Amino acid sequence: VRIPSSLVCSAVLAGICQFTLGATEAESATDARMLRQIFDTALTSSPAYDQLRELTQKFPGRLSGSKNLEASIHWSRDLLLKTGAEHVELQPVMVPHWERGAPERVHLGDRPLAALALGGTVATPEGGLTAEVVELQSLDALVTTDVQGKIVFFNRPMDPTHIATGTAYSGAGDQRGRGPAEAAKHGAVGALVRSLTLSLDDIPHTGNTSSPPGVKRIPAAALSTLAANALSEALKANPHATVSMQLNSRWHDDSLSHNVIAEVKGSEFPEKIILVGGHIDSWDITEGAHDDATGCIQSIEVLRIFKALNYAPRHTLRIVLFTNEENGMRGAIAYSTRAKERNEVHVLALETDSGGFQPRGFNLGNPTGNAHLRAARWAPLFTPYGITVFQKGTGGVDVSPLLAHGATVAGLMPDSQRYFDYHHTAIDTFDKVNKREFELGAAAMASLVYLVDQHGL
Amino acid sequence: VRIPSSLVCSAVLAGICQFTLGATEAESATDARMLRQIFDTALTSSPAYDQLRELTQKFPGRLSGSKNLEASIHWSRDLLLKTGAEHVELQPVMVPHWERGAPERVHLGDRPLAALALGGTVATPEGGLTAEVVELQSLDALVTTDVQGKIVFFNRPMDPTHIATGTAYSGAGDQRGRGPAEAAKHGAVGALVRSLTLSLDDIPHTGNTSSPPGVKRIPAAALSTLAANALSEALKANPHATVSMQLNSRWHDDSLSHNVIAEVKGSEFPEKIILVGGHIDSWDITEGAHDDATGCIQSIEVLRIFKALNYAPRHTLRIVLFTNEENGMRGAIAYSTRAKERNEVHVLALETDSGGFQPRGFNLGNPTGNAHLRAARWAPLFTPYGITVFQKGTGGVDVSPLLAHGATVAGLMPDSQRYFDYHHTAIDTFDKVNKREFELGAAAMASLVYLVDQHGL
Repeated sequence: VRIPSSLVCSAVLAGICQFTLGATEAESATDARMLRQIFDTALTSSPAYDQLRELTQKFPGRLSGSKNLEASIHWSRDLLLKTGAEHVELQPVMVPHWERGAPERVHLGDRPLAALALGGTVATPEGGLTAEVVELQSLDALVTTDVQGKIVFFNRPMDPTHIATGTAYSGAGDQRGRGPAEAAKHGAVGALVRSLTLSLDDIPHTGNTSSPPGVKRIPAAALSTLAANALSEALKANPHATVSMQLNSRWHDDSLSHNVIAEVKGSEFPEKIILVGGHIDSWDITEGAHDDATGCIQSIEVLRIFKALNYAPRHTLRIVLFTNEENGMRGAIAYSTRAKERNEVHVLALETDSGGFQPRGFNLGNPTGNAHLRAARWAPLFTPYGITVFQKGTGGVDVSPLLAHGATVAGLMPDSQRYFDYHHTAIDTFDKVNKREFELGAAAMASLVYLVDQHGL
Repeated sequence: VRIPSSLVCSAVLAGICQFTLGATEAESATDARMLRQIFDTALTSSPAYDQLRELTQKFPGRLSGSKNLEASIHWSRDLLLKTGAEHVELQPVMVPHWERGAPERVHLGDRPLAALALGGTVATPEGGLTAEVVELQSLDALVTTDVQGKIVFFNRPMDPTHIATGTAYSGAGDQRGRGPAEAAKHGAVGALVRSLTLSLDDIPHTGNTSSPPGVKRIPAAALSTLAANALSEALKANPHATVSMQLNSRWHDDSLSHNVIAEVKGSEFPEKIILVGGHIDSWDITEGAHDDATGCIQSIEVLRIFKALNYAPRHTLRIVLFTNEENGMRGAIAYSTRAKERNEVHVLALETDSGGFQPRGFNLGNPTGNAHLRAARWAPLFTPYGITVFQKGTGGVDVSPLLAHGATVAGLMPDSQRYFDYHHTAIDTFDKVNKREFELGAAAMASLVYLVDQHGL
């Protein structure tokens, strides 16, 4: 093989960088052996998949304020202790407490439309809400459309041409996150939002919707993509068609929840922390398998793998299961606030909250912005495992607040094609997680943790 | 980004090569735009997924000799003409005709074991077969073990530490392919084989078993992995435990089938061929979705994409749906024989028969052995789509015979983690195919075809 002088890094086209920055050959050989052992340990007789089954099936609907969330937190603490954590702390966090109530009903005339109330929404008035519907493709369209007294129906699909489905999700997400509140400002009495998915099916996807102070919340629900298409067709035939909504949700006072914080003290740098974590809460209507039971168990699996290999981390290994990612981020805020108060140094804070699919790489961020390039020197070590992407990012929702305190943050990037088939739905169940893909994700995380523990980033 | 002079290609560790060999920048920009258009076309409003649904659900059990195989062949011809093929030929091929007959029954005492007769096996004698069982981990163990009058039970699992599951499959496959015949040579009266999968479940996996001339065939069946574990446990408790088998299969005379050969003539090099293809036959007990309805429809989708983009290939584009891949390879042999007789030049023969999963790369082979390095110059063009692997190979079962005639062959390499969950089982159904992963695979194929058509390999 003749390597040409005009070698072009793949990064040029993809924002991805795949080359070494100068690890010595001896380092590489030792590290390659360790990664092989990590992957072997993850792929052979691991208890993680059974643990995932138990977490998802014993404690579905782990929404903030629910009994199942707190029960899963205590279950996780016990599992962490059993796995070899030296110390597990439950950090108290007050979290929002919103409940769906009786199942929602949305009808177009006599026809039921598959729907889920959006998280945080208010109930419809006594007797339900019936109104004409205005279909819009964007929040901007509110400015030029009369929506007074009507139900606004945001129906812009996710763009299927994005290869990373998360990009398509972000591109359409304003309709769910801010759409109902914006519609309310313009006088709408309700909101319907096309489910954030690339699938065409009858599964509605819930998710949070927010409302700035001073804006009156209006009832808001997500429609399945098939229901959204049906409603759109009906409105073409009859622009005065009405929809009836019955939502039964309610807000309670904030509720006590906890972050789970487990540790194994570092043998050389006990005051420096390498964090791995996911979020333990889920939406109420789901097992929350890919979102994010997989991330929690994968984080615990990092500890199990190190224990199985008798690897004692030089830095303190901290496993954190964040509470309330879905509708408040209070766990992440409480954790980062505590970290700042204590002047804790996070050498790495690695989050996994993008599903238990085949790992493809990592996003990384640090104050100087070069963490992904630094990590890319290990690309040759990861390539045999199909892990080739090292791109700039902010980790994920739960670790990103640490970035402002000087931490290096990272997020596992699994293959994204299937994630939004299941995300925030009743079908995000254990059986949708492939055992090996899930195990490979845990091994990828353990590998990055090992390399940072050995060589820094 | 400072690119160090000591740049180490990922190929060093992975046998994968990811660098350019000198495409000009202008070429790259045009090509990058074309690949973007190809992927957009595949991912937006493509009919391919609906075509896949129709093929799998209208024509399940497309085994050689079956009516459904021939019906699917005629359906495919019509679809190719509708898609824009200028000419579609059905090449006659005589294929083996084996039938399972009434469902097989395998019992350990009173306990039924989930089992499927292996393709090509003979029926049990009138009244069934009952015998003691000898568990072996390898064919070699036959030399040192008395199996006379017994049922040999090959129970070596696939090795879960291989990242490419195909490697694990190959490593255990001798037990199914040659095991029963070897056991027969040593006097065994029957054979049971642990299903070739990394899943632990109750789904048996069939597949072909062969027998050299002069060796009497014995009844042979695959056990689900859970059944295999149960049998192994039972034998530990009682080494004289017996198993009863009732297989009802039979051999018929060879049957007439066909390869489907469709063409669009090349605008500049009509005598030079770029082939894309998969196999249209499947096992009898399955929709054969991933194996290999996806490959057939993806191959047809390459044509549709080019038509949609008004791209007229310079070389003749030939779509071939091979018959009888599963239990005879007669379609591949007939095609390569004809190609040799006609002195046809295959600039590229690209097969897809590894499932409709997220594409990760290609294996490539040519007489000089450098095809994968030549193709790797396009790595930067493929990286944005998650396609990073260009490794040496022989394409796949159906195109590999062309290699001896000087062709450059290739095989699409999708992610392999889930393939053997479904392979050769009743659950290899349409619903196991993710629409986007399947579409991305077709786009990957169209992209490679386009690049070879433009620049050669």
